[in-house]
Amino acid sequence: MERYDIAIIGTGPAGLQASIVARIRNKKVLLIGSKDLSLKLTKTHSISNYLGFGTISGEDLAKQFKNHLDELNIEITEDKIQSVYSMGEYYALQGVNVMYEATSVILATGVVSTPQIKGEEECFGRGVSYCATCDAPLYKNKTAVIIGYSKKEEKEAKFLSEVAKKIYYLPMYKDELDLSSSIEIIKGKPMEIRKVDGGMELITDSDNFVVNGIFVLRDAINVKTLVPGLEINGPHVVVDRLMHTNLPGLFACGDLVGLPYQYIKSAGEGNIAALSAVNYIDKIKQ
Amino acid sequence: MERYDIAIIGTGPAGLQASIVARIRNKKVLLIGSKDLSLKLTKTHSISNYLGFGTISGEDLAKQFKNHLDELNIEITEDKIQSVYSMGEYYALQGVNVMYEATSVILATGVVSTPQIKGEEECFGRGVSYCATCDAPLYKNKTAVIIGYSKKEEKEAKFLSEVAKKIYYLPMYKDELDLSSSIEIIKGKPMEIRKVDGGMELITDSDNFVVNGIFVLRDAINVKTLVPGLEINGPHVVVDRLMHTNLPGLFACGDLVGLPYQYIKSAGEGNIAALSAVNYIDKIKQ
Repeated sequence: MERYDIAIIGTGPAGLQASIVARIRNKKVLLIGSKDLSLKLTKTHSISNYLGFGTISGEDLAKQFKNHLDELNIEITEDKIQSVYSMGEYYALQGVNVMYEATSVILATGVVSTPQIKGEEECFGRGVSYCATCDAPLYKNKTAVIIGYSKKEEKEAKFLSEVAKKIYYLPMYKDELDLSSSIEIIKGKPMEIRKVDGGMELITDSDNFVVNGIFVLRDAINVKTLVPGLEINGPHVVVDRLMHTNLPGLFACGDLVGLPYQYIKSAGEGNIAALSAVNYIDKIKQ
Repeated sequence: MERYDIAIIGTGPAGLQASIVARIRNKKVLLIGSKDLSLKLTKTHSISNYLGFGTISGEDLAKQFKNHLDELNIEITEDKIQSVYSMGEYYALQGVNVMYEATSVILATGVVSTPQIKGEEECFGRGVSYCATCDAPLYKNKTAVIIGYSKKEEKEAKFLSEVAKKIYYLPMYKDELDLSSSIEIIKGKPMEIRKVDGGMELITDSDNFVVNGIFVLRDAINVKTLVPGLEINGPHVVVDRLMHTNLPGLFACGDLVGLPYQYIKSAGEGNIAALSAVNYIDKIKQ
């Protein structure tokens, strides 16, 4: 299998900056995320605090970021990493359908800013999933609720609805919905998820649904379930000033490592994380 | 005297980013440095690792920074801060001719990357000075050596030569010199500074000079002598992840707080420092 020097998970400012620094340093880089970069960025109406750009829309700033990647021939691999395992000499990254290998990993996945739903974490892997595409094969003739935190999750819902018997979709955003008629749209605020006889129950403030599985699809990945053994503090990964985590060869940066949540703070940390990863690689290869 | 909310010392990426964030947060900001921003930045031929700009010259990036300040009506006060004293409720900043007051201070002065000269620190304030303009009145009919680390120090030399009896100028750079004929240009590598009978002695690798005073003029300020009581570690100010120093209301960011020395890392830290200063002010004003 192809072994990358540095796998970067996340295409917000932290991950993008890390990728340009790693590329300039001639490392073999795998950048995993979305070709649309970060929804949080592109949806921002106006940004005035990214030094050098004056006042600029999130969409235009994202274009500038994309141009920078293009200039350095950095490609984005569209995937959703499900788990990162240390294999001693390298890390194995489980994507939706593909496994990747990299000597070092930079986590730049952003932070889950929406609160967890009661029961969500306890039920993760036992009826709660963060990836509809990954688990679709298991849902033949089954039922599921998808709680989607952004419009792009509608694609996942469609995909799942093609194999499943019945899909309920609970949108957590206000955009107009674009879903096939076979998907039942539900409304309300999710209050609790729990295991019950016959499957999983989602309790909202106005109703309840018993299904085979519940998908919670947010923009950011829940880092608690992503990397076994990683030291975290609340929603944040614990890092030192050089963005080292407690796991050798694993670095983290951006919103994921703490407040304030600011674009240029994230980019700055991405730079540091990339240089720390470069040092790590260079030492190993000596 | 006018009391600023936040005084920012330094006009590299860290100080500039801090100033735009503080201004956006409606604080009364004093930004002290050079209208030419940072020489280190403007002299850089090509920069490829500041996310969003692709490959850009230091000069052009500085122009973008300047435009950003202009858009927010942020002015740069040209001065060289000699010392920062905690007065309890506020800080007093001693400029060349003016004293400033600010409730909080952000140090973004960069780091002294050139090695100290042997004896320099021990003789500081006792024959060695970092500011020719400040001490000029003391040099009537006296002699001095100026060790200038960049072309802009020639202005200081000219100013001093108008009052002093004799000025020697030792350039530590390769640009063409533009000095009046009354200033004697000397060559060589400074090896040691020491107190001797009759004044101060500068020993170079090829000669020695006994004068009344020695001026060491670098782009960055030596932070050891700038803020009494500030905790430092080698050339760096000790900060936590929110850019707090050991002194309440005093923050630091950029190259000054540690490696790696990278533009966007500095800007990111400037953002954090500004928000920490804003929080500090808001708590005090409650």
